[in-house]
Amino acid sequence: MPASSSSSKLEQRPNSNSQNRNIVVLAGGVGGAKLADGVAQIVPPDNLTVIVNSGDDFQHLGLTICPDLDTVVYTLAGIENPETGWGRAGETWRIMAEVGRLGGPEWFKLGDLDLATHLVRSQLLATGHSLTEVTQTLCNKFGIEISVLPMCDQPAPTMIATDQGLMPFQTWFVEQKWQPAVREVVLPDVISTAQVVSCLENADLILIAPSNPFVSIDPILNAYPIRSMLADLAELVVAVSPIIAGEAVKGPAAKMMGEMGMRVSSAAIAQYYGDLIDVFVFDRRDSALLNQEGSLNSLITFQTDTLMNNRQDRRRLAQEILNLAMELLNS
Amino acid sequence: MPASSSSSKLEQRPNSNSQNRNIVVLAGGVGGAKLADGVAQIVPPDNLTVIVNSGDDFQHLGLTICPDLDTVVYTLAGIENPETGWGRAGETWRIMAEVGRLGGPEWFKLGDLDLATHLVRSQLLATGHSLTEVTQTLCNKFGIEISVLPMCDQPAPTMIATDQGLMPFQTWFVEQKWQPAVREVVLPDVISTAQVVSCLENADLILIAPSNPFVSIDPILNAYPIRSMLADLAELVVAVSPIIAGEAVKGPAAKMMGEMGMRVSSAAIAQYYGDLIDVFVFDRRDSALLNQEGSLNSLITFQTDTLMNNRQDRRRLAQEILNLAMELLNS
Repeated sequence: MPASSSSSKLEQRPNSNSQNRNIVVLAGGVGGAKLADGVAQIVPPDNLTVIVNSGDDFQHLGLTICPDLDTVVYTLAGIENPETGWGRAGETWRIMAEVGRLGGPEWFKLGDLDLATHLVRSQLLATGHSLTEVTQTLCNKFGIEISVLPMCDQPAPTMIATDQGLMPFQTWFVEQKWQPAVREVVLPDVISTAQVVSCLENADLILIAPSNPFVSIDPILNAYPIRSMLADLAELVVAVSPIIAGEAVKGPAAKMMGEMGMRVSSAAIAQYYGDLIDVFVFDRRDSALLNQEGSLNSLITFQTDTLMNNRQDRRRLAQEILNLAMELLNS
Repeated sequence: MPASSSSSKLEQRPNSNSQNRNIVVLAGGVGGAKLADGVAQIVPPDNLTVIVNSGDDFQHLGLTICPDLDTVVYTLAGIENPETGWGRAGETWRIMAEVGRLGGPEWFKLGDLDLATHLVRSQLLATGHSLTEVTQTLCNKFGIEISVLPMCDQPAPTMIATDQGLMPFQTWFVEQKWQPAVREVVLPDVISTAQVVSCLENADLILIAPSNPFVSIDPILNAYPIRSMLADLAELVVAVSPIIAGEAVKGPAAKMMGEMGMRVSSAAIAQYYGDLIDVFVFDRRDSALLNQEGSLNSLITFQTDTLMNNRQDRRRLAQEILNLAMELLNS
């Protein structure tokens, strides 16, 4: 296989046997949710698991809020708010307005419908259910058949060391609008779940979604033993770059790369993942950048249009990646 | 003073100096809130404190819910729901409907506006504020100038021993609609707050509102050292009967009395409070019942119309009680 394939050829190939392969997507928020939805449009639900970052979960207004899990669940259920990238479609804001009137914090917006999710989750957690069980319950209620797993059941708060001090992820990301310059992402030592370990053991293909590598994917990899399982097991690991034309599609990935002394490019993302990945998918707008970099020789790279503006885009990108992966798995 | 005075005379007396006396109301939910509002219409806010039962507080949907505190606060703010006896006027139910759709518990109804109170309270409690501080903050936001104090800052869950087993108060009261027969009310040993102790030390008059003696007033008295302060200090203690014409105005008081082997009458309420009270206010519809009872000889009794259907009723009843109390305090 050439180091840089044409998407048009791959797109024309038959679906082959991706129906029978077990696929795991590692996902943060929006980008991860979109790619997961693309794959979910193609493969049977029993063959797909999405492992979601829970490092940006936090306690707010007395409730346990899981932003990435909710974005993935709402997106897979087709009820996500396409304008915001978080929360639900058709949302109203009566409670948030009253919370503000009562002097409560307003910086993290919780819509009325969205709040029901947090209330039910908090109730289930308080009565002894694990986050994995709670997520399964919510998926059932939202009609989602594929398996969505938090990376771990323990609290795993991502902390951001910035030029204004160490702060919890959501304080930096939402309250401070990711403006404080990042020096380091600080991840706690946590242990993943039996469900995650089992699905990774049975995986044929692992897709690292085009999510932020530092605050979405690294927290997942850091939950023991996920990183070592990706490194040691025989499954194919494919990463999709979150950088398009030298910029992040959404969020702070590019800004963080600059602040942490990295070149802002898809090539730098590929280098960051290093030996962990077998295939790197990046946008055709970034070819020039990638060609300038070295040390990617052992990596299979694949260029295509990685921007996912609608459900058809998600399916097309997922299909191209699956076609390539199946070809590699069957070779 | 005769053992049974006529309200018409007292009503005509001047307000005397109730303006300068410190008054404390012990209150449960609706009945307590109404009498507190009546007193608040008469005396300056600096001279009135309402100590509220927090024994029916509980954790629900991840939040700390304080039903009696909220009923008192909403009533004093004039935003209570007059139809239900709990919650806020102009309420909507979008979140509760969605919670139900997601399989969450629906037996305890939380309106959209009401939820904002629980969210803000839970946030403040989670960040280290006491329930006393939280209640003060909410009172400020709702424009309430009088002091509203929870009976204690610790969790003090009232448990109900029934013929169907021991259950938390709200399970019995709301979920089971107070139908399981009550054998005993089980109260935890808790300690009150410096704020409560201070206001009782400075009180001239303590009004025990027409709330349920067993599940609203007893939990307050049981928070150490409230009962002993009422018994030992020189202030005047006036109790208002929750029984009218041999029935409870609202809620399970009468049913409980029967189940616990008591006669269902205002006289039995007076006997239950015993030496703790100096004056007993009861409805004119219950005079026949009271006259049949013995052992009330040392008690000053006062008959009037104790039903509070509107704000004018609340003020009238409060004014009659204050007039009587001021006469006794000044004699």
